Amino acid sequence: MRHALEIARRGPATGPNPRVGCVLLGPDGVVLAEGWHRGAGTPHAEVAALSDAAQRGASVRGATAVVTLEPCNHTGRTGPCSEALLAAGISRVVLSVPDPNPVAAGGAERLRAAGVDVETGLLADEGRELLGAWLPSVERGRPFVTLKLATSLDGRVAAADGTSRWITSEVARQHAHGLRGEVDAIVVGTGTALVDDPSLTARNAAGELRGHQPLRVVVGHRDLPAAARLHGPGGELVQVRTHDPADVLATLAQRDVRHVLVEGGPTLAAAFLTAGLVDEVHAYVAPVLLGSGRSALADLGITTIADALRLTTRSVRPLGPDVLVVATVDPHTPQEH
Amino acid sequence: MRHALEIARRGPATGPNPRVGCVLLGPDGVVLAEGWHRGAGTPHAEVAALSDAAQRGASVRGATAVVTLEPCNHTGRTGPCSEALLAAGISRVVLSVPDPNPVAAGGAERLRAAGVDVETGLLADEGRELLGAWLPSVERGRPFVTLKLATSLDGRVAAADGTSRWITSEVARQHAHGLRGEVDAIVVGTGTALVDDPSLTARNAAGELRGHQPLRVVVGHRDLPAAARLHGPGGELVQVRTHDPADVLATLAQRDVRHVLVEGGPTLAAAFLTAGLVDEVHAYVAPVLLGSGRSALADLGITTIADALRLTTRSVRPLGPDVLVVATVDPHTPQEH
Ligand SMILES: NC(=O)c1ccc[n+]([C@@H]2O[C@H](COP(=O)([O-])OP(=O)(O)OC[C@H]3O[C@@H](n4cnc5c(N)ncnc54)[C@H](OP(=O)(O)O)[C@@H]3O)[C@@H](O)[C@H]2O)c1
Ligand SMILES: NC(=O)c1ccc[n+]([C@@H]2O[C@H](COP(=O)([O-])OP(=O)(O)OC[C@H]3O[C@@H](n4cnc5c(N)ncnc54)[C@H](OP(=O)(O)O)[C@@H]3O)[C@@H](O)[C@H]2O)c1
Repeated sequence: MRHALEIARRGPATGPNPRVGCVLLGPDGVVLAEGWHRGAGTPHAEVAALSDAAQRGASVRGATAVVTLEPCNHTGRTGPCSEALLAAGISRVVLSVPDPNPVAAGGAERLRAAGVDVETGLLADEGRELLGAWLPSVERGRPFVTLKLATSLDGRVAAADGTSRWITSEVARQHAHGLRGEVDAIVVGTGTALVDDPSLTARNAAGELRGHQPLRVVVGHRDLPAAARLHGPGGELVQVRTHDPADVLATLAQRDVRHVLVEGGPTLAAAFLTAGLVDEVHAYVAPVLLGSGRSALADLGITTIADALRLTTRSVRPLGPDVLVVATVDPHTPQEH
Repeated sequence: MRHALEIARRGPATGPNPRVGCVLLGPDGVVLAEGWHRGAGTPHAEVAALSDAAQRGASVRGATAVVTLEPCNHTGRTGPCSEALLAAGISRVVLSVPDPNPVAAGGAERLRAAGVDVETGLLADEGRELLGAWLPSVERGRPFVTLKLATSLDGRVAAADGTSRWITSEVARQHAHGLRGEVDAIVVGTGTALVDDPSLTARNAAGELRGHQPLRVVVGHRDLPAAARLHGPGGELVQVRTHDPADVLATLAQRDVRHVLVEGGPTLAAAFLTAGLVDEVHAYVAPVLLGSGRSALADLGITTIADALRLTTRSVRPLGPDVLVVATVDPHTPQEH
């Protein structure tokens, strides 16, 4: 399974499909073949492994398939993997994570019904970790939402005159570019788009565009000027003319977006939080004091400390002079204000 | 010198006098005697070491004195240590940190003039660290000021209705009690005293008062109610009826205070920062979002990002779910707004 998880990582971390790896083992435990999913429209890991076996001339009748995600049981752009495994004569399947997708699930059941020995849950934590935002996005039926904040120690995201470049350090900003490179879409409100004129691109340390550019999404009714940097090089630009975060996510889900990065400003961030549509917060906090200017978040409707929105800290990481706090919003305790 | 630094730590970290250690070595490098300063009114480390030698019946003529701070050259509650070392026939002195106090300094010069071989600067970083707030307070001619903030991720120190108990975790609050136990005085504004009714005591994990209780200082004109917790058990209560932070520090300096902890609120914290009278910030940041309520700092007169007050991060430390950022204000770049 460790090897299956390892080869799965060769697949793309972004896009609509999960990263999956599959290893075929002979009765003596020897590796017969392997495969991983290379992205939407290409064969699933199980099918890739079966082709690999065919190419190597290896017989897989009676073999064991070790796969990081439950084999699918539906016909999408590719056929059901459960059927492919059965047709090939696989007699045992070991899998890490059950498929949470109601459309694709049922592979294990189908295999068991056909007499295959199926074992689930092996290295499940690693298996879930590999799937990243894909798993919760499928579980929640909407894109996974990361909210990014970049604040001073007193929680400001801009000075009194609206200037905000830069509060955090070069090191922190580089790190944030790495995060942009891992998501499918970056979302800001029209306020930020108009005041900051951002590019919303993922760049490397040399300032060059990275290979993967997320969709650039602006939320709100006001038009952007023709000269806006958002019209320049980078991911496709989409404006969603709504104030409802659920609408934004529905629009993006239709475009196969699994992982959304909300980069503010305070009004849009508060709207996502109030709607209960933030899964994770990445807060870059700089050793800077401002004393005035916009706070990171507009009103959340919280009036007393007992109703504060309390997150669960996942990691604390110094980045140059700044610190990155990653914290999650517990999906099981809806916030009541 | 390492041993001298070690025994110096046995002395009190608070109070008007520095922690100092002294080791007397024979010509063969063997330890003849040792001494450290035990607090105001007791013998200085050098004199303590000479008495230790006398008690042990060791001859110190021609010996080397290894001392963590330059021997004083003035007569205070005790005589000048330079003279005591000369009278004892010490022929060599190795010291870590020169005395920054214009009144007490000159010991090294006096010793050299009398033919003693004086070497300075040995383990100077450790020597400075040992002295803690004492050294900068003497250098700056006023108490050293630590500003404590306890904020949500969006920089709030209270919810919209003024409630602020608690934003940070038990672990962080325990840590803050440790800091209180290390300072000479805790300072708050009348606003905090009236809204929060705090005790401002240093307590241990069991909630009991620690041995050392700092002075409790309230700044502002309004009177405290007779039932205020500040009248209860703890350090002496002092109200300074001014709005000028320099006045506050002058009053406290007269009471032998070397290290002040300003615990807010936002108005008083901003006044200290604007006056350039904060040396160090301890920011406890909790994974909590509020969206409204008082921000950590009132207006600092900063209008644009280029004028932001930028601190130097000294440490980043997770404390339970929270993070403690310790950062210093560079004394060499006065803030211009
Ligand atoms: N340091 C940082 O990390 C950071 C990041 C981002 C922004 N900022 C700063 O934040 C400031 C901009 O703040 P902002 O709050 O105006 O920006 P914003 O949240 O980006 O945009 C607010 C606008 O978005 C639209 N909108 C979308 N959904 C909404 C909803 N649910 N409710 C109300 N309006 C909604 C509205 O515009 P329409 O009228 O067009 O519909 C609204 O005026 C700038 O100074 C910028 O520098 C800082
Ligand atoms: N989370 C935390 O760490 C924390 C810590 C402290 C406070 N808080 C919260 O902060 C809130 C209180 O805020 P606050 O700003 O009113 O409190 P504050 O700064 O403690 O007190 C302000 C008062 O101090 C006096 N004062 C002293 N120096 C001043 C100056 N230079 N300029 C103006 N006034 C000066 C004035 O009162 P006079 O009229 O009496 O002169 C002023 O009204 C409370 O909700 C409290 O819970 C939170």
